[in-house]
Amino acid sequence: MSGNTFGNVFRLTTFGESHGPGLGGVVDGCPAGIPLDESMIQLELDKRKPGQGGLASTTRKEPDQIKILSGVFEGKTTGTSIGFYIENTNQRSHDYSKIKDVFRPGHADFTYNAKYGFRDYRGGGRSSGRETVSRVAGGAIAQELLRTEGISIYAYTVEYGGIKAEIKDYEGAQDRPYFSPDPDIIPAWEKHITEVRDEEDTLGGVVEIRATGLPVGLGEPVFGKFDGRIAQALMCVGAVKGVEIGSGCEAARSRGSLNNDNLDENGFLSNNAGGILGGISSGQDVIARAYVKPIPSILQEQQTVTTKGEPTFIMVGGRHDISAIPRINPVLKSMMALTIADLLLLDRRLGVRD
Amino acid sequence: MSGNTFGNVFRLTTFGESHGPGLGGVVDGCPAGIPLDESMIQLELDKRKPGQGGLASTTRKEPDQIKILSGVFEGKTTGTSIGFYIENTNQRSHDYSKIKDVFRPGHADFTYNAKYGFRDYRGGGRSSGRETVSRVAGGAIAQELLRTEGISIYAYTVEYGGIKAEIKDYEGAQDRPYFSPDPDIIPAWEKHITEVRDEEDTLGGVVEIRATGLPVGLGEPVFGKFDGRIAQALMCVGAVKGVEIGSGCEAARSRGSLNNDNLDENGFLSNNAGGILGGISSGQDVIARAYVKPIPSILQEQQTVTTKGEPTFIMVGGRHDISAIPRINPVLKSMMALTIADLLLLDRRLGVRD
Amino acid sequence: MSGNTFGNVFRLTTFGESHGPGLGGVVDGCPAGIPLDESMIQLELDKRKPGQGGLASTTRKEPDQIKILSGVFEGKTTGTSIGFYIENTNQRSHDYSKIKDVFRPGHADFTYNAKYGFRDYRGGGRSSGRETVSRVAGGAIAQELLRTEGISIYAYTVEYGGIKAEIKDYEGAQDRPYFSPDPDIIPAWEKHITEVRDEEDTLGGVVEIRATGLPVGLGEPVFGKFDGRIAQALMCVGAVKGVEIGSGCEAARSRGSLNNDNLDENGFLSNNAGGILGGISSGQDVIARAYVKPIPSILQEQQTVTTKGEPTFIMVGGRHDISAIPRINPVLKSMMALTIADLLLLDRRLGVRD
Amino acid sequence: MSGNTFGNVFRLTTFGESHGPGLGGVVDGCPAGIPLDESMIQLELDKRKPGQGGLASTTRKEPDQIKILSGVFEGKTTGTSIGFYIENTNQRSHDYSKIKDVFRPGHADFTYNAKYGFRDYRGGGRSSGRETVSRVAGGAIAQELLRTEGISIYAYTVEYGGIKAEIKDYEGAQDRPYFSPDPDIIPAWEKHITEVRDEEDTLGGVVEIRATGLPVGLGEPVFGKFDGRIAQALMCVGAVKGVEIGSGCEAARSRGSLNNDNLDENGFLSNNAGGILGGISSGQDVIARAYVKPIPSILQEQQTVTTKGEPTFIMVGGRHDISAIPRINPVLKSMMALTIADLLLLDRRLGVRD
Repeated sequence: MSGNTFGNVFRLTTFGESHGPGLGGVVDGCPAGIPLDESMIQLELDKRKPGQGGLASTTRKEPDQIKILSGVFEGKTTGTSIGFYIENTNQRSHDYSKIKDVFRPGHADFTYNAKYGFRDYRGGGRSSGRETVSRVAGGAIAQELLRTEGISIYAYTVEYGGIKAEIKDYEGAQDRPYFSPDPDIIPAWEKHITEVRDEEDTLGGVVEIRATGLPVGLGEPVFGKFDGRIAQALMCVGAVKGVEIGSGCEAARSRGSLNNDNLDENGFLSNNAGGILGGISSGQDVIARAYVKPIPSILQEQQTVTTKGEPTFIMVGGRHDISAIPRINPVLKSMMALTIADLLLLDRRLGVRD
Repeated sequence: MSGNTFGNVFRLTTFGESHGPGLGGVVDGCPAGIPLDESMIQLELDKRKPGQGGLASTTRKEPDQIKILSGVFEGKTTGTSIGFYIENTNQRSHDYSKIKDVFRPGHADFTYNAKYGFRDYRGGGRSSGRETVSRVAGGAIAQELLRTEGISIYAYTVEYGGIKAEIKDYEGAQDRPYFSPDPDIIPAWEKHITEVRDEEDTLGGVVEIRATGLPVGLGEPVFGKFDGRIAQALMCVGAVKGVEIGSGCEAARSRGSLNNDNLDENGFLSNNAGGILGGISSGQDVIARAYVKPIPSILQEQQTVTTKGEPTFIMVGGRHDISAIPRINPVLKSMMALTIADLLLLDRRLGVRD
Repeated sequence: MSGNTFGNVFRLTTFGESHGPGLGGVVDGCPAGIPLDESMIQLELDKRKPGQGGLASTTRKEPDQIKILSGVFEGKTTGTSIGFYIENTNQRSHDYSKIKDVFRPGHADFTYNAKYGFRDYRGGGRSSGRETVSRVAGGAIAQELLRTEGISIYAYTVEYGGIKAEIKDYEGAQDRPYFSPDPDIIPAWEKHITEVRDEEDTLGGVVEIRATGLPVGLGEPVFGKFDGRIAQALMCVGAVKGVEIGSGCEAARSRGSLNNDNLDENGFLSNNAGGILGGISSGQDVIARAYVKPIPSILQEQQTVTTKGEPTFIMVGGRHDISAIPRINPVLKSMMALTIADLLLLDRRLGVRD
Repeated sequence: MSGNTFGNVFRLTTFGESHGPGLGGVVDGCPAGIPLDESMIQLELDKRKPGQGGLASTTRKEPDQIKILSGVFEGKTTGTSIGFYIENTNQRSHDYSKIKDVFRPGHADFTYNAKYGFRDYRGGGRSSGRETVSRVAGGAIAQELLRTEGISIYAYTVEYGGIKAEIKDYEGAQDRPYFSPDPDIIPAWEKHITEVRDEEDTLGGVVEIRATGLPVGLGEPVFGKFDGRIAQALMCVGAVKGVEIGSGCEAARSRGSLNNDNLDENGFLSNNAGGILGGISSGQDVIARAYVKPIPSILQEQQTVTTKGEPTFIMVGGRHDISAIPRINPVLKSMMALTIADLLLLDRRLGVRD
């Protein structure tokens, strides 16, 4: 409730700051007997590593070695809580004097300072994007559970800096730069990235997250709807400013006769609903999109104030990505996995499938 | 967790079906001493009534009289749970044979049937939009709490059937047809509504929800972010397919230098963030938009299947609204109010303002 | 969390005061397809009625008619929230001036006043024992669910005013005065009750609660232990001051060699554990005991203070029971049922039985 | 909900097994600005160490060095989640063949095996008493918060092996063997311990937990009562089989005229209620007692079965304490501290003190 726990039945609790000793978390509620070892989690963590993202990434190295501390015995989950830890190994002694007493525009400096009375000014502390490493580790555990049920999750980039991709092959996207579902769009994206980098600016984009192999019936009516849960899961990732399901925002400009998904004896004839009806999964693919803002750390001077409210200018230097995409993709995938794991276990106790 | 409860500290639990004896709920966690009587709640319920919505509404009459059952003594809340009830008075004996064994496209018939093994086929049961009457009643109680803190909430229609309104006056919108912030757009909307009605089709639109007077500091980091909570709150309203905060989806096509909100000694110079930074309120207006799909009940024949999977056609008749807007507006307003009430009480125990 | 909700997966939320319009609640999370009608709940409510308790009860009549408001369709639960309501029909216009500004010893007057700033002084408001009528209704629904799994719950009086009963027949206890498991002890109890009544005093006692037919595996390790959950469930009933499981408090004076339950090929050879090992049900009967204090409303003058802190004396008159037993028995039974229903549904999603 | 999290607003989540790499936890919801460093937590951990307990303890050495991983910056809590870790340093390679396939009487072997399908047989895994090291660390953080509010907690042994202590000095108890509030009883206890040890048996006892300096108003009505929360908190500690508040179980044999706590202008004239009325703290000391069973690992041969259900005998050897007391005392103290921290923060948002 204080914000560091996600889920009710399958639950992830995380801790850690960008410049503390390390980050980690606890997964509680994972059933016993699920195959799990560190290498499975490491695979997902490696997708979030800097340098994976083609031209858009920093060259900073963070090995991000996962260590499982509990809850696994002889290669399987025991049903008790799974603790894990990732040591921070890349903390160089910085000079923070430039940002210690100044609020960086677009960052959480101002609000953290107001809420808590002071802040850990070293690299954003708990508000740093580095926090998401724990989400990816927890999400990897969720994905191992989902795998045993035949459920897969994909997160691929459908728009970058305003340039749309075609969804030609989402399954192969995770092996391509920018997690692109369209190999042919990559040169156009890279040209744009190079231009924007030269202008010392940053870019956003759109990520589609898809879950396949879902049973019918996940989600709870009214306040616990599957789509509501997804919206919360994706919107609570740092840079996300908009979330849509299925036909999404465009549905607002459509008509009932066009937007309804009709059925025949083979099932649904379209998927404008994005796999969810009345808040409950229909068995079709669940499809959501997250709209990602450009990252706020730019190599330009920006107008701001000090912690005492005096006007000043700040130039946030350092090694920064030009976009949260594609490093945000495994994070969004993890949030979807955590959401589905929770609803799956919750649903098992209800309804006719028991 | 089973879906009928919203919030952690300020909590609404609801019950009721469209064709049962009535609907109601329990508000738990409301502080003692807040002025409250039935007329305050009735005001909000009346905004959700059919017939409020100009041409878009049905002419069905539902008086929706609120009755407070507990938690109020001598005109003030006592700090204990507030039970309330709204009797269903307009249940006419229908012939449900047409929809009893057939799944209506775009409705929850298919998924409820699969999840629970059978369904209350009379008008959608728990999946009916009528369920939202309890949300509006609970939201009205939340708004009385927020009023004591100087917080106000507005929900106005910024786009209807693809036709955008200018935000000329959002404070007066609730007294205008379609809760329009732009008196001049109404004729264009009505012309469009008339055309679409003649084509026996339905419409969607976009509703903006704005909260003013918020303190800095609401929201919890990581998974409990204010924007994440809003996304869940709005997306769990029946017809909503997309949610955005501040500059929203457009941020994905912007640049860091344009999307960052700079500051000077008088505060923020823009509000692309929508009043939330790092998941925590900045003191600016919180601004969200909900994208509402066209309602699925159309007066056209649609292809579907029976509960046994046999192909058939259905013509969903009856008195139906042409759009969920504007009756959805007080529902969205209520969801925002419930979200803020919860975060407000949660925040009181933390941080420096104690 | 604000106290009016019990359980996580199978959840009861209650509302209502002794002198308001009525009391009720919402059960959320009950699986679909459980047979349920009002008569099943009424049976349990009738066991809590005044006049059931032999000499120990008041003669006040409270019909306590249950009304189901939602969640049941054609005689079965639908899987959605079950609202229920019990109207208060016996509110006579009292003169409250005697207790309005005075704290009754042993009641919650002092603490409610301090916590909320004022209190509903009519008969205790939310702190009245009348609140438990909603628990019994919710517990009756839980018992219908448990019945489908072959689980039964019993609550019988093993000690009354210091006089112990033998457990000769706990299954028949609910049809005997004082829910006595020992028909032969009743005359001794009644003699004692008559004496204490003549002395204008009140009595306590001990109630044993037993659950039979439980599967192995209910309860979660560490903080979610079955015995911890039972302790909370029973101790949150008004007059309970002590709770024990199995050999209970006596275990503190025993030895490991005597207190351990050994096993042979037919199972456990004793049940000092009370059916719970490491917080998880072992398949034996779960046995708990609640120690019930004498009710504080006595027909004697007592020393106290006014709400302004001035010393005074109070004589709490009226029609009061001489003991919370046996009317508390169905309440304790309900709390056990609610606890088990919650753990049962929670456990379904974990472990090897899926 | 899956058992490894305690509390709602001030929340502890724990992980770790006796024979894994280590144990730890996450405290979420602790307000910002509370002084905290590792030495404060270490002090409490040291009270739980073997060898502290006089004759009753093993001589095994477990340094139990706490490491804070997050949530503290420049000596103060930041308001974000506090991760901590205690490495297991004393894992000797054991021969587990004796217990691998056999259920130890009085342990959780049987139920864990049934619930999860298999178990970590090395020293009990998650069901080991070693799990409580995380509770003590979390409780130490809670106590630092409570200290800033003037609240103190004590846990002292009031009965050992059936021999009662007088409560002569509870404040000094934590510096005496067995946390005895009565220096004069220690020789009698030690004589008894020596005898029982010679008989290769184990002992239980009773621990009283007292909280002083509490404000009026903590606890929530109905299901969230302070005493209910304490009962759950203490009963979910491994060896506890009974819990009582104030006059406790004896209240069941008392009368209303004796058990009520009268008031005069200086406050309450007695404390049979144990500092709680109607589930809410009255400002008096909160007093609870936990009844601790003899530990089940005895140096005698016991009748049991193998995991395949075949009858056998087991002799649980090894270095075992003769009693859970006094090492359980800091655990019980921690559980009380965690309970009060949670209710304290929860209460801040309600009532008149805001």
